[in-house]
Amino acid sequence: MDEVRIIEIKKSVFADNEKDADALRHELKGRGVFLLNLMSAPGSGKTTTLIQTINRLKDKIRVAVMEADIDGDVDAIKIKEATGVPSIQLHTGGMCHLDAEMTRQGLDNIELRDVDLVILENVGNLVCPAEFDTGSCANAMILSVPEGDDKPLKYPLMFSVCDLVLINKTDVMPYFDFDMERCREYIRQRNPKAQVIPISAKTGEGVEAFADWLLNEVAVWKTP
Amino acid sequence: MDEVRIIEIKKSVFADNEKDADALRHELKGRGVFLLNLMSAPGSGKTTTLIQTINRLKDKIRVAVMEADIDGDVDAIKIKEATGVPSIQLHTGGMCHLDAEMTRQGLDNIELRDVDLVILENVGNLVCPAEFDTGSCANAMILSVPEGDDKPLKYPLMFSVCDLVLINKTDVMPYFDFDMERCREYIRQRNPKAQVIPISAKTGEGVEAFADWLLNEVAVWKTP
Repeated sequence: MDEVRIIEIKKSVFADNEKDADALRHELKGRGVFLLNLMSAPGSGKTTTLIQTINRLKDKIRVAVMEADIDGDVDAIKIKEATGVPSIQLHTGGMCHLDAEMTRQGLDNIELRDVDLVILENVGNLVCPAEFDTGSCANAMILSVPEGDDKPLKYPLMFSVCDLVLINKTDVMPYFDFDMERCREYIRQRNPKAQVIPISAKTGEGVEAFADWLLNEVAVWKTP
Repeated sequence: MDEVRIIEIKKSVFADNEKDADALRHELKGRGVFLLNLMSAPGSGKTTTLIQTINRLKDKIRVAVMEADIDGDVDAIKIKEATGVPSIQLHTGGMCHLDAEMTRQGLDNIELRDVDLVILENVGNLVCPAEFDTGSCANAMILSVPEGDDKPLKYPLMFSVCDLVLINKTDVMPYFDFDMERCREYIRQRNPKAQVIPISAKTGEGVEAFADWLLNEVAVWKTP
């Protein structure tokens, strides 16, 4: 198994996270690096989705991954093995989210001059990560079919802060009572601007659309 | 649709939650009321599991339910309609967990003299609720098959505080790469004392075992 670096993140000392997040975004803009903050509940398929997507992107742009977790390094190793792109693990020390300063501590361990896109896999949690601006250039989330189409009603803040909602595990839709149109409507009620892309990280369906969305976002971001 | 009461929970003012939780437990013991704190990620099937279980319990013991959520009242209504037992909705005002004082605010809205068992459906989150003792007499959690068998490695605290782990959605095991024995082993590593009951809230499989576990816990608790 490849070794991956594990970074122990310290609790943020900045009182004003929003200001700090804006500063980080400004800095990333200057360096031409696009940071995507990817959020979801545990088990929505974030890591599998990333592997599929990165393998479609890595010949076009330079990608790196930061895996945030309470504990463990399974995901960073998986991504490094399956894609070959730089991947580091951030340990949050029990914290349920990342803020901008914690994100910066992770970025300090990546050679940003060699990278166009950094994907931050946030802690698996639909509540707390939505409350903290990480300094990312865009927020995306994964909702998976087994979780149910009513989740936008129950976690409104998460859906309202996301530019993109991926609906994963569409391959198991026949076995679950999940209505895609109803889900789209609930998302629209919370956030009319959010794009919605149904995908199956397992079969690869829809992953191309997510990869294209990322390529476009990165290109726009890198335009001075 | 039945109306349910929605209680807006205020943030706790108690600095010492552990002491407060012990006090609440002591009070519940004195009143012969068993409080179960049920935790899980979003979409694990908590509400469906509760409906199935309560319908097997309600002729044997008196049950009430407190549904904690950031927003919405869907679950409390569902439970009231499907089981007929008293069910109230707690709004946490954006908070990602309940502590003992918040739990007490909910209990203040239930006629405890008419109840043997109160089930608290905690906020859907595998991180924060594990950090706060609610004053419950036992902790249980639901892990669902689509979330993956590796979750005990990634959310160790949650698994370590639970007396019982229900593994739900066993009916869809053929469609997911979920190894029950591996999952049991990971749980054992985190918490050798935790009981594990595989269930399918959809088909009813295993629900009787959970109902029996609850009946036994309540009986033991009510023994002076």
